[in-house]
Amino acid sequence: MVATHLRSPNRVEFVSDGVFAIVMTILVLEIKVPHNLSHDSFRRALAELRPTMAAWIISFLMTGMFWVAHRDIFARVRYVNRDLVWLNLLFLLPVALLPFAASVLGEYPSDRVALQLYGVVAIAVSVLRFVVYWYVVRRPRLLWPQEGHRRLEEGFLLGALPIGVYLVAVLVAFISSLASILLLFSVPVVYFLAVTIARERGGSDSEADEFS
Amino acid sequence: MVATHLRSPNRVEFVSDGVFAIVMTILVLEIKVPHNLSHDSFRRALAELRPTMAAWIISFLMTGMFWVAHRDIFARVRYVNRDLVWLNLLFLLPVALLPFAASVLGEYPSDRVALQLYGVVAIAVSVLRFVVYWYVVRRPRLLWPQEGHRRLEEGFLLGALPIGVYLVAVLVAFISSLASILLLFSVPVVYFLAVTIARERGGSDSEADEFS
Amino acid sequence: MVATHLRSPNRVEFVSDGVFAIVMTILVLEIKVPHNLSHDSFRRALAELRPTMAAWIISFLMTGMFWVAHRDIFARVRYVNRDLVWLNLLFLLPVALLPFAASVLGEYPSDRVALQLYGVVAIAVSVLRFVVYWYVVRRPRLLWPQEGHRRLEEGFLLGALPIGVYLVAVLVAFISSLASILLLFSVPVVYFLAVTIARERGGSDSEADEFS
Amino acid sequence: MVATHLRSPNRVEFVSDGVFAIVMTILVLEIKVPHNLSHDSFRRALAELRPTMAAWIISFLMTGMFWVAHRDIFARVRYVNRDLVWLNLLFLLPVALLPFAASVLGEYPSDRVALQLYGVVAIAVSVLRFVVYWYVVRRPRLLWPQEGHRRLEEGFLLGALPIGVYLVAVLVAFISSLASILLLFSVPVVYFLAVTIARERGGSDSEADEFS
Repeated sequence: MVATHLRSPNRVEFVSDGVFAIVMTILVLEIKVPHNLSHDSFRRALAELRPTMAAWIISFLMTGMFWVAHRDIFARVRYVNRDLVWLNLLFLLPVALLPFAASVLGEYPSDRVALQLYGVVAIAVSVLRFVVYWYVVRRPRLLWPQEGHRRLEEGFLLGALPIGVYLVAVLVAFISSLASILLLFSVPVVYFLAVTIARERGGSDSEADEFS
Repeated sequence: MVATHLRSPNRVEFVSDGVFAIVMTILVLEIKVPHNLSHDSFRRALAELRPTMAAWIISFLMTGMFWVAHRDIFARVRYVNRDLVWLNLLFLLPVALLPFAASVLGEYPSDRVALQLYGVVAIAVSVLRFVVYWYVVRRPRLLWPQEGHRRLEEGFLLGALPIGVYLVAVLVAFISSLASILLLFSVPVVYFLAVTIARERGGSDSEADEFS
Repeated sequence: MVATHLRSPNRVEFVSDGVFAIVMTILVLEIKVPHNLSHDSFRRALAELRPTMAAWIISFLMTGMFWVAHRDIFARVRYVNRDLVWLNLLFLLPVALLPFAASVLGEYPSDRVALQLYGVVAIAVSVLRFVVYWYVVRRPRLLWPQEGHRRLEEGFLLGALPIGVYLVAVLVAFISSLASILLLFSVPVVYFLAVTIARERGGSDSEADEFS
Repeated sequence: MVATHLRSPNRVEFVSDGVFAIVMTILVLEIKVPHNLSHDSFRRALAELRPTMAAWIISFLMTGMFWVAHRDIFARVRYVNRDLVWLNLLFLLPVALLPFAASVLGEYPSDRVALQLYGVVAIAVSVLRFVVYWYVVRRPRLLWPQEGHRRLEEGFLLGALPIGVYLVAVLVAFISSLASILLLFSVPVVYFLAVTIARERGGSDSEADEFS
């Protein structure tokens, strides 16, 4: 009975949902309006916030994308073991860094280093998400029973996609800040579309079927 | 079995409750007393906080109203699908903006632009809440079985009510800040009363019966 | 089936636990050490934090006491209705104010107004907790079945105790700040001891049996 | 039925997971980049953050280690009683102090007092975790049934290990800041390895088997 509870993914999911909820909400705390402005300069300050707001919306969607991916993986996990508990903590580590990276980017939006810092944190989250996925799918004893033989290549491709785009964005930053920003910010949309396509192409035993 | 967990609304509710709890608690973090004041100026600073405190109480109740509405909708949701997971994230996006809008309004309480920013965020939350409701009620396969034929007009009207009042408040701000504030702040009370009336008028197959 | 989920106290408990967890953790965020001090002045700054730290520990225990009381009440709640959902939100409102009141008290520890603000917030939480308890125990249809006839006087007395002590503390602040502080800070201990005594005196049908 | 819910560990776990999730995420909020820097000084500021980042990663892993330990203990808890509810609150108290201690250490990384403050908070968490464990294992009526006779010495040793290392780190700080930092930061790794060794050495009735 103890073992049952020790293997239950419940609290792993609770603490992960907590971290994601806080990250999503805290991202926006970095958006600040200066105090005691005249009415005219207040409006100007608000107008100047527009790029920060755009960056915030995209960071929120990126965090949402990672949460969706985490939920997809743990929907199939019946039991967690010691490795999975600690791997999940390692995954949450760069997730908790997202508000910091977003606030640096909001402060220095056209700076190459700020863009690359943001990209590196996003790569870290994507890689650890891939590691958790890779660990889980290869251990059927930890999973809920599944019908049919899954074609795992799709799942690996969908997991690798964000890593690839973020990597290109970090490299592109050496040449053009704007191109790097656009790449960084396209990822949630590209991911959503890629999952849509993979689900439509795959049959009922498609791995992509279990990605939201 | 995987599909069962993938379709469970549990984690969608967890992460939403997390975001709501943080927003409710963080709203108040914007209320700050200056450091190192003399005792007299400390009391004056505290007295000057009164409008901010009033604004905070109303923002808290507004957030509470949106949480109640979210709980009402998901009480009928048996299964979530991919669309609903992402729609819910889009709904949480303006919810996470509420502390920012409230702090801007607390800083510039009589400014038209601050009022309109607050109103626009409230409209965004209300509209997305309406979209989620509209999406859900038209997909019986996602819902718990229900007795009787629901008269959905009531539900649509109750969902549209906050959108309408917030819209009027944004427009009224061009003429009178005070009238706009009063409208913004009346919404939770008006919503509560409207649900009360609709529940009392409706019979057992009234849609309003399932609104808190 | 919808009604079952609408009446489930689950999400009411989730959002309340979220608010309590954030309040407990955020209280301490107000404790800050100044930047860029020399080593000597850093140690002096740390030493000066001692009263703040003491105030923080007591505020944490007070918040813990309110959480324990909330858990005690909802342990008997089988179904929530519309009133209870909204009453619980009203209860969470002053709970969310606790970090603000604690930070004001930490900044102006010997000021009468700061003490009374803290006391008034604590009274608001205690009164609303009493209202929720009073509402719940008088509606057996909302509760889990219970054996024996409960002697409710004990429960009312235990709920009224914090209100009384906080009220005295607010009044005593006009005469002596120190006495007021000591009263404010004694409440969690006094409450714990009062529950202990009531549980030991009561029999198996004692209401106090259901207070932690 | 009331007693069943009053004895359920659910909400104790919820509120603890909430506090842990917030602490993990808030740790990083202390990492801040100054505003309005020139591009060169921005990069220098970022480079200067490296020790803070290292300290943050280790604090995150330490918090993770305490969460894993909490989860291990409560995996065996079937019922909580009044003592356990309050003991758990006392345990959460120093946990909530971790972001404060980490931010002081991040600000004054080579200061003996900052190191000792950090060590003392870590000792407080470790000691209270030990007390909760010690309380729980001696009350079989609160636990899920377990096969075999557990050799509790392993559990006590694994619980005492962090206390010991943190104590040495506090004392070593009088001689060498660097040695103290390295000791503080080695604990999660040492703990992980110690559990690994104890699990591999123990048989199926090994207490260490239930430590992650």
